[in-house]
This record gives sequence, C-alpha cells and structure tokens, in this order.
Amino acid sequence: MKEKIDIIENRLKELIPKNSSYQKALFEAASYSLLSSGKRLRPLLVLATLEAFNKDINLALDPAISLELIHTYSLIHDDLPCMDDDDFRRGKPSLHKAYPEWLAVLTGDYLLTYAFEIITNAKNLDDTKKVKLIRALTKYSGGDGLIAGQVVDLSYEGKEIEFEKLKFMHLNKTAKLFMAAIEFGCIISDASDDITKKFVEFAENMGLAFQFFDDIADYDDEKSSDITKNKATAPAVLGIEKAKVFAIDLQKRALDILNALPYDTAILEEITSKIS
Amino acid sequence: MKEKIDIIENRLKELIPKNSSYQKALFEAASYSLLSSGKRLRPLLVLATLEAFNKDINLALDPAISLELIHTYSLIHDDLPCMDDDDFRRGKPSLHKAYPEWLAVLTGDYLLTYAFEIITNAKNLDDTKKVKLIRALTKYSGGDGLIAGQVVDLSYEGKEIEFEKLKFMHLNKTAKLFMAAIEFGCIISDASDDITKKFVEFAENMGLAFQFFDDIADYDDEKSSDITKNKATAPAVLGIEKAKVFAIDLQKRALDILNALPYDTAILEEITSKIS
Repeated sequence: MKEKIDIIENRLKELIPKNSSYQKALFEAASYSLLSSGKRLRPLLVLATLEAFNKDINLALDPAISLELIHTYSLIHDDLPCMDDDDFRRGKPSLHKAYPEWLAVLTGDYLLTYAFEIITNAKNLDDTKKVKLIRALTKYSGGDGLIAGQVVDLSYEGKEIEFEKLKFMHLNKTAKLFMAAIEFGCIISDASDDITKKFVEFAENMGLAFQFFDDIADYDDEKSSDITKNKATAPAVLGIEKAKVFAIDLQKRALDILNALPYDTAILEEITSKIS
Repeated sequence: MKEKIDIIENRLKELIPKNSSYQKALFEAASYSLLSSGKRLRPLLVLATLEAFNKDINLALDPAISLELIHTYSLIHDDLPCMDDDDFRRGKPSLHKAYPEWLAVLTGDYLLTYAFEIITNAKNLDDTKKVKLIRALTKYSGGDGLIAGQVVDLSYEGKEIEFEKLKFMHLNKTAKLFMAAIEFGCIISDASDDITKKFVEFAENMGLAFQFFDDIADYDDEKSSDITKNKATAPAVLGIEKAKVFAIDLQKRALDILNALPYDTAILEEITSKIS
C-alpha cells in the first residue's frame, strides 16, 4: 500500500503544471492543497480494484489522480467562509487562509476542470472507456452525487435532521466518491455489469461506514468543527452507541460483499478494516 | 437567429432536472441563473458553425448548451463577494443575493460538472468526438483558459496593468469560450485541422473585439462596476480613442477571416457585425 501511495504522490506532482505565466499563482495554490498530506484513499481504491482484477495499475493511475483532484476541489470550496468556514485543513491553514479567498474559489474550479482534462489525456485507454469514466465521474460528483450531499449538509447546519436525510447526505457527500473510485477500477478492468454492481455496493457500505466512524471519532472532540457548528452527524442523530453499532454493521457488510467475490480483494479488505 | 435562440432556450429548460429530492434548491438556483435573459452567444456560435458546414444543428445542440452552462457557472462564481462582488446580473439580483451564498458556490460547481455530463450523453455523437469536445472544453475553460483570465483579472484589480497582460486576460476570460464554441462546431462537422485553425482564429479576433467593445460601452457609464472597481479595461489602459481603433481592427480581421473561407458564414458574419 505504501508503494502505491508513493506512485500516486509522484504522479500528482508531475501533473501539476509548473507554469511561469501570468496565472502561476493558480498552480501554486493548487500545489498547496494537493500536495499536503492526504490519505489518497480514493486513488488507492482505484488501484486496489485494478489489482483485484489482476490488471496493470498504471492503466488507472491518471483516472485515479482525477478523483483526488475532485476530492481536493470539494474540500477547498467546503472550507470557504460562506460554506463550512474552516481555517485549517490537513494540519495547515486552509487555502483561503493561505491565499486570497478569490484564488481559493478559482483553484477549486481549476481542479474540477482539470480532473476531466486528465481523463481525456490518459494513456492506453480508448475513447469509449474515457467517456464511461467521465460519465461516472459526473454522476457521482455532480448534482445527484457529491454536490447533492453538500447542499443537504449546508441546508441542515444547526437544524434537526431525520436519519434518512442524514444517510442521503453521507451517501452523497462521502460514499459517492468511493463508489466512483471502485467503478473507475471496474470500467478500466472491463468488469461485467453484474460484478461492477457488487463492487460498487461494497464501496457504498464502506464509504458510509468511513463517514460514520469519522463522526464517531470527532464526537468527543470539543474542538471538532462538526461539534462547534452543530453539524448533522450520525452520533448526534442516533446517539453514540447506536451510531457505533451502525458503523460496525456497515463495515461488516462491506467486508462480506468482498469475501463473496471470486477475486483477490486483500488490499480492499485491508483498507476497509483500517477505517474503524 | 431568433429561431436558433428559441431552440437553445427550449433545450436549456428541458435539461435542468425537475427533481423534488432533498437537493431541489440546487436545481431551482440553477434555473434562476440559466433561464434569465442571456444572449446565448456561445451556443449560437456553435450552431452557426454547423450551418456554415451545412450540417444538422441538432447534432450540436447539447454540446452548445454545455458552453452556456460553463459561461453561467463562471458568472455565478465571478459575482461572489470575494470575487467581483456584483449584486446584479442580467437585470436581476445575482445568485448569491437571491439565494444563500453557499448555494451560489455549489450551483456554479454543479453547472461546471453538468456541462461535462451533458456532452457524455449527447445523442448521435461517437465517443471519439465526445472526448475531443471534452478535451477542447477543458483546454479553453481551465487553468490555461477562462480561469487563467479570471486569475489575472482579480490579481490586477485597482492596479496598473500592461497592455500585453490585459490582452492575455481578455483572450482567456472572454475569447477562449468563443473559440471553444467555434471549435465545437468544427469537431462535430468533421472539419479538417487547417480549416478548424482558421475558424478558431476568427473566434479569437471576434472574442477580443467583443470584450473591447463591451469595455468601451461601459467606459462612460459611471455606475458600471468595471469603473467603480477600477478594473483593468482596454479604454483605461489605451485611452478611449485608441481602444476604439483596436476594437474595430479586431472586428475587421475577424470578418476578413470569414470572408476568405469557402463556406456560407452569413450568420457568423451577422453575429460579428452586431458586437460593435
């Protein structure tokens, strides 16, 4: 896994333009956000899926990076004063604190656009696969995906929320990019529709579990911005004990799906086990 | 031209989801911005290019719409308080004034993402053309296109700017989406690389002329936000008379390129003549 993360980090560095033209502040800001110490979970899930199908992970490297760009753009915009108003991200000042706020907005827009560009230019993938990847990316990150989750999140800040809406929010805000990652792996590996469906179902459960465990870990942390902003979280809605039971159940379901698949999903299992 | 605008308006309305799920505020906000009275110049340029090649404009309708989405997202983000801080757009309150500011950020992100989705789902275009369209869109609207122009614009607000940088800014902020529109038309019409180059050169001159004339028209308007914010504009940098000479020259060059082409470019000429 360490080896894969290194591959991802190196390719990320290569892909940020080192342009000295009039807009170079844009690429500096993009580097600031992209090259901070993220877990690279989404690209890692893509590569781990390729390995389950015994395919060359290099086929999937650039599409995998594009998911990290989408994740990073969403964090940059999410941190803005009019959104979550977070001053810190990954242990350093958030982008709009380190650079002007307008540059943070534009850097998010740039990373979002660049994610699609990278897929169009990916080596050794035919155009049909590229279109499938881009369609999947828009489905999981757009108005019925990531952005839908953000809308519900911001709409319910400081308000009561039913558990169904909370699940909708986490499904879209968090799990959808995990599902995109796994579907990317399946598209590139030529997996059948049935197998893809199973893998994506794994990602849905794993992604929801990931968010629940994250909220549970934050629950006792008074400095957590979820707590100070009275954010809708699973422990806030269900109570901490019930939330834990739910998270463990989701994680178990994810692992059960993997175990029922006739592929070597060792790395996906390892990633799933580590989220609790 | 009126007929084409009606076709564009109708398809725009069809393409905005009428979703009543938890994120319906997002689609309402998107309608608010998209269905205000824009000139639809970019989609119109795509359809006019199809007509120059004597092709069925319906082939290009959805890609043309995607450019209007990109244009609209950039206006929404551009109007934000941390960007140009404009309270009005197309004669009504800008999106962040009519809706919460966070929803304006997310609506921009949504329209940007949805633009790519629409291209992947366009009817009667093969995957190779779709990839070409998406690659062109990212090239003209990304970090070496529209967004580069925005970065320079915001960087130089209230500061002296040389003419070269001003031209870079207008080329990227305005002309690049016109170039995207014309290149879209060429890709869909199977134009050769040489012919495409000529058409795109037309769009570059026309787009720059459009921005220059726009700045000239605003120059005497004390209420114009360019003037109140001390924005870098052609008349401010060159003086009003020289700016006019420059704009007329660019417009003439655009028309000369069209006239030298062995196609019926009547509608493109009409659009170009009307910008002054």
